[in-house]
Amino acid sequence: MRFFSDNAAAVHPKVMEAIAGANRLDTAYDGDSLSARLDGAFSDLFETEVRAFWVSTGTAANCLALAALCPPYRGILCHRDAHIEVDEAGAPGFFTGGAKLMLLEGAGAKLSPETVAAACDRIRPDVHQVQPAVLSITNATEYGLVYRAGEVTALGRLAQERGLAFHMDGARFANALATTGDSPADVTWRAGVDALSFGFIKNGGLNAEALIVFRPELADEIAVRRKRAGHLLSKGRFLAAQILAMLDDDLWLANARAANAAARVVAEAAPERLTYPVEANEIFLKLNADEADGLRAAGFDFYDWGPGEIRLVTSWDQQGEEIERLASAIRAL
Amino acid sequence: MRFFSDNAAAVHPKVMEAIAGANRLDTAYDGDSLSARLDGAFSDLFETEVRAFWVSTGTAANCLALAALCPPYRGILCHRDAHIEVDEAGAPGFFTGGAKLMLLEGAGAKLSPETVAAACDRIRPDVHQVQPAVLSITNATEYGLVYRAGEVTALGRLAQERGLAFHMDGARFANALATTGDSPADVTWRAGVDALSFGFIKNGGLNAEALIVFRPELADEIAVRRKRAGHLLSKGRFLAAQILAMLDDDLWLANARAANAAARVVAEAAPERLTYPVEANEIFLKLNADEADGLRAAGFDFYDWGPGEIRLVTSWDQQGEEIERLASAIRAL
Amino acid sequence: MRFFSDNAAAVHPKVMEAIAGANRLDTAYDGDSLSARLDGAFSDLFETEVRAFWVSTGTAANCLALAALCPPYRGILCHRDAHIEVDEAGAPGFFTGGAKLMLLEGAGAKLSPETVAAACDRIRPDVHQVQPAVLSITNATEYGLVYRAGEVTALGRLAQERGLAFHMDGARFANALATTGDSPADVTWRAGVDALSFGFIKNGGLNAEALIVFRPELADEIAVRRKRAGHLLSKGRFLAAQILAMLDDDLWLANARAANAAARVVAEAAPERLTYPVEANEIFLKLNADEADGLRAAGFDFYDWGPGEIRLVTSWDQQGEEIERLASAIRAL
Amino acid sequence: MRFFSDNAAAVHPKVMEAIAGANRLDTAYDGDSLSARLDGAFSDLFETEVRAFWVSTGTAANCLALAALCPPYRGILCHRDAHIEVDEAGAPGFFTGGAKLMLLEGAGAKLSPETVAAACDRIRPDVHQVQPAVLSITNATEYGLVYRAGEVTALGRLAQERGLAFHMDGARFANALATTGDSPADVTWRAGVDALSFGFIKNGGLNAEALIVFRPELADEIAVRRKRAGHLLSKGRFLAAQILAMLDDDLWLANARAANAAARVVAEAAPERLTYPVEANEIFLKLNADEADGLRAAGFDFYDWGPGEIRLVTSWDQQGEEIERLASAIRAL
Repeated sequence: MRFFSDNAAAVHPKVMEAIAGANRLDTAYDGDSLSARLDGAFSDLFETEVRAFWVSTGTAANCLALAALCPPYRGILCHRDAHIEVDEAGAPGFFTGGAKLMLLEGAGAKLSPETVAAACDRIRPDVHQVQPAVLSITNATEYGLVYRAGEVTALGRLAQERGLAFHMDGARFANALATTGDSPADVTWRAGVDALSFGFIKNGGLNAEALIVFRPELADEIAVRRKRAGHLLSKGRFLAAQILAMLDDDLWLANARAANAAARVVAEAAPERLTYPVEANEIFLKLNADEADGLRAAGFDFYDWGPGEIRLVTSWDQQGEEIERLASAIRAL
Repeated sequence: MRFFSDNAAAVHPKVMEAIAGANRLDTAYDGDSLSARLDGAFSDLFETEVRAFWVSTGTAANCLALAALCPPYRGILCHRDAHIEVDEAGAPGFFTGGAKLMLLEGAGAKLSPETVAAACDRIRPDVHQVQPAVLSITNATEYGLVYRAGEVTALGRLAQERGLAFHMDGARFANALATTGDSPADVTWRAGVDALSFGFIKNGGLNAEALIVFRPELADEIAVRRKRAGHLLSKGRFLAAQILAMLDDDLWLANARAANAAARVVAEAAPERLTYPVEANEIFLKLNADEADGLRAAGFDFYDWGPGEIRLVTSWDQQGEEIERLASAIRAL
Repeated sequence: MRFFSDNAAAVHPKVMEAIAGANRLDTAYDGDSLSARLDGAFSDLFETEVRAFWVSTGTAANCLALAALCPPYRGILCHRDAHIEVDEAGAPGFFTGGAKLMLLEGAGAKLSPETVAAACDRIRPDVHQVQPAVLSITNATEYGLVYRAGEVTALGRLAQERGLAFHMDGARFANALATTGDSPADVTWRAGVDALSFGFIKNGGLNAEALIVFRPELADEIAVRRKRAGHLLSKGRFLAAQILAMLDDDLWLANARAANAAARVVAEAAPERLTYPVEANEIFLKLNADEADGLRAAGFDFYDWGPGEIRLVTSWDQQGEEIERLASAIRAL
Repeated sequence: MRFFSDNAAAVHPKVMEAIAGANRLDTAYDGDSLSARLDGAFSDLFETEVRAFWVSTGTAANCLALAALCPPYRGILCHRDAHIEVDEAGAPGFFTGGAKLMLLEGAGAKLSPETVAAACDRIRPDVHQVQPAVLSITNATEYGLVYRAGEVTALGRLAQERGLAFHMDGARFANALATTGDSPADVTWRAGVDALSFGFIKNGGLNAEALIVFRPELADEIAVRRKRAGHLLSKGRFLAAQILAMLDDDLWLANARAANAAARVVAEAAPERLTYPVEANEIFLKLNADEADGLRAAGFDFYDWGPGEIRLVTSWDQQGEEIERLASAIRAL
């Protein structure tokens, strides 16, 4: 049983159906009738006019946004454990043309306004030191913590004061909202967010993420950058179809709720072992090597997270029985 | 009836089946069991050990190869009408970090050894002028002409003499081979080609192209560059599945033959109007504005190619009847 | 006797004096009292408020300007023989992060509004083709022709209509103005020029060129880019000193007049051999190989400019007698 | 009296003489007779065959070396306080095309083999994480500490084991050697260093630093990169002249000894206030705000280094009397 990553999960049947349904001739690139519906669908969801771009990976979504928000000679404030720093092979440096990630601390990969302000204050405002241009946060974080609307708003206010654009990596945006109940609008543009990488792939999609841009004036540049990065697929209708299927009847939210519920079941099996509160679909547990071996021997697959700690990730498609067996196994350690 | 571009065509049913069949949990990125079969499958096809990478677009395939072959401070010799120059939004400049495309002439977007040699000779070998590092050709060309193995070999020999790496944009590689009957090996590595963008999307695929690397020592760098460009999909198994389906029983060749045959039927309808010989699945016709309007009024969609000229592209899925109607309509002009 | 390039000429004594005079402790970088005078000095010269940056090479001046004016995903329209295309080792690609030079034709390396407009018209306004962002001209051109204020104004008007920024490479700006008598203002910002590389090194300076920015809002970015490119010298006062010495009493104009006058003497020796009118300090002559050998044997050094053509460049410091001897030698051929 | 930075110091008279002496016509760029002597002069100094390049700034020297040693998709291990990280405006990101600086800790900005090894061990060797390619140290460090030959050798051995190239930022290389007495060879190539930025500007030069390359196969690439970065000055002879003057009779060492001696006098005035041992020409002192004000009121200029700490830097030209007055003033606090 695989609790390694939601990246490896199956694609939701409705998404597969949508892909099959898109297999008819249409205009190439994003000129098709499905792609044409994206801006409207997301504008409805976010209760404001937005521009939406499908891309094939979260890395592409993040880095196209960062490239549009940060000139090559400035910097991006983010957490030391942010995906853009740790797991994207330096893609932000590539897409921006050499902008600098400026790494901040914070428990559970969360940033506070105080930390961001202090980091800005340490930088001499001269040409010798790289000046920050963007603040980027991940919601839910790489440790499965969520930012609530109020927290994002506080960061957004600070970003504005300091002249920073504000980017949210929402690879697990659905999981965050499934927990907080915040509206998509409240946790993004109303809180000052300029661009959001809205993840669908970990949540039942195949190869479609959405880059949502809340400042329409950025859209033309992003469209060109997407093409230039080789991310304008000629049969884009198959990506649009996936996203529309996920938005339909809030499938994205239902899937995220399922994954989060599974994670809570696991978390409740061993609250004393948790190294972070479980607020989304990731569970970090203290487990010694023998215990980890035992769990693996029982058929569970997961990620070692440094010595004495493991990471489990639940997916939208993880069955009740499978989860119960995992919870029991952990309880039995 | 759409003769606008093979980019917009439907996906082949066997490819759709393969996608559906891949929808089970597997390791993420390219660690899955399908991706693991690619190197072997292409090594068989090319009769030598190759490394194969799935990517989502031809632009990505081309530019990852070019970035691995060309340092940022050197140049890429290509035809003035090459896709990398004309239709990739400057992606080669982005992926290489600023390398220069050096534009050559040649009828039908074909390059000859003489043209390439003359271009090299015009460059002063000093630090003030950009020195070429790569020769890139497109097969079939942007005007639907094919390079035969002997022609590629002559270019490959020149490339070697001049210290140039050799890249082939094979967005329509299948169409070229369907015409020439050359073996994949003879028209690539045996002719000196270092890397091939092997197109499947125009030929019945959904979002999977293959970048084939004939110099295994380049593979590690390309793997990193693919990730860094946001082109390492987390559910890569769905791309591998498409490519394997296309390779199975030479579906790629069957599809290309069908498209080429359709093009020949159209070409034979008006040989006196052809501006280039029809050697693959593209037909360029002299047509005045009235004639073009008439053809459109009859329900045919195509691309205006400058004043008095149109481009028609046939696809693997274009029906016999549809083609006959187009041929008749052209004959009737 | 060296007529190879004005690049190799000696430094004017007043510039050497200014360097010696700057050798006292002062604030580093451009915080010194001499650098502080540059903006004012050039604002006086150009009759408007400008921002001026010293840099060590024309390549740096050109490419810092281009990087500020052209995003990485757009293009720079310039002549096929422009220095930025031919002799800067791809520096525009490096500084801009991969922007594309779009090469235009024109006799004597001059561009006309018609040529520029036609080039713009050939580009499809979509994301697949690189859109131009900047027009760059060289004055005097690489063939020693000058743009008069009216000509620049016509180009500037077109640039504005097409949404293009306008850059002038003025490596030999002084030579151009010495010929036309135009005011610095008329041939730059009044004609629509946004940034000028104002050359001093070929004209008696040691290592100081000035980048003049007519849109003050670009200045902060250029200051950062200069530092980031390693072009913010710690003892910048020595560069400022040179430029101030060149501006003092219009030494820059006097030197250019001397060089131009020398060129005219040579040109008049063989008007029938000229391949371009001599409007600045470069002379292009038809000379067969024997004649060229003869001239070299007589002690004159110059550049072969393709078969049957040579280039001679005169400098501010070329003596009357030396010039007369060259003129006689040419006359005697 | 200025103890702000050695960057602002005067140029040594012998260097000024050399500049004056170079003011005759010679071949442009680095084709002149003085530039031609650099490789030999440095090969003698380093007791092996090296390639030497003049450049105008330390940033250019550092970043040209790093660009040649580190591909855009890899990383450079350096101290958190390294000049390349803190004071070069992101130039490493620009020159390398987006490579990542990986920041390490260490007292006084010194790195130990243990720290470097631990940093390497923390990086997963996969395509998701940026892999390091270069180790860069500064000698003397940004806090005025020196690496002795044995220390560099230990780092060099580790670099080799880990497959890292090894770069030394020697903006104050002379000051380091003046203290350690190590031979230039022992502290560089014999210890495994691949490229050295050999600083002259802080030590009596005007605008000439030398980039010394101990792996001759890198030289051609660096020559092209220098041109491409706008750092190939047309009158390069004036830079070569400065460097040759500095090498003549070991003026570089004499100047550094003078600056170091001055620093020691100051340090001995208040050993209990030193926050770092004074091993070169920088002195970091604990001083409260009142004391700092007092010192400034007495005519001494320096840099505030965070609350309660100041930095003083001595230069080659600082007079005995001036130094004594500073020492007395500090003693008197």
